[in-house]
Amino acid sequence: MTALTQMKCEACQADAPKVTDAELAELIRMVPDWGVQVRDGIMQLERVYKFKNFKLAMAFTNKLADLAEEEFHHPGILTEWGKVTVTWWSHSIKGLHKNDFIMAAKTDQLLD
Amino acid sequence: MTALTQMKCEACQADAPKVTDAELAELIRMVPDWGVQVRDGIMQLERVYKFKNFKLAMAFTNKLADLAEEEFHHPGILTEWGKVTVTWWSHSIKGLHKNDFIMAAKTDQLLD
Repeated sequence: MTALTQMKCEACQADAPKVTDAELAELIRMVPDWGVQVRDGIMQLERVYKFKNFKLAMAFTNKLADLAEEEFHHPGILTEWGKVTVTWWSHSIKGLHKNDFIMAAKTDQLLD
Repeated sequence: MTALTQMKCEACQADAPKVTDAELAELIRMVPDWGVQVRDGIMQLERVYKFKNFKLAMAFTNKLADLAEEEFHHPGILTEWGKVTVTWWSHSIKGLHKNDFIMAAKTDQLLD
């Protein structure tokens, strides 16, 4: 399987398919630092990144914002002192699309 | 009473007093667009700001980050497409200090 970081998000309409349980099991293994949360009935990917201070957390938030605009897929980014919590899901389908796993993998890459 | 926006945050140690109920009632009137939330037993001030797109939301997040560094008091900033949710509380006292109301008022001023 091609690395997620090599893929681009596809346009995701309201009738696009959510990931199946089998796909979820395969995809989640490719982003092992991410957890699956269900919030208000919507399945989401979430990861907390730790930083030494607020400035470094904000620098990461800005890198992630640039990535989000590039791919035109936007996460929830909770920036706090020394900590950024990133949440990916596909608003249009109210759940997880393969795009979210691609974006999770690309978010991890921002740390390099 | 001096406008909150004219005040500076005081250093806030673990033994600093939380706002009393009477102070809370007075201070919350000075930031009428903010609500009080209790999360994990910690009282917090919260406001959602709406924007036309992600770029404008991020621009606000960056202005708020600069303000936080200036006053060295840091909120939770949840940036999403078209929306920024700001949460103020005083970590050291696990609750609300007058500083949080000062910062809420100054956050509102960033919109001007």
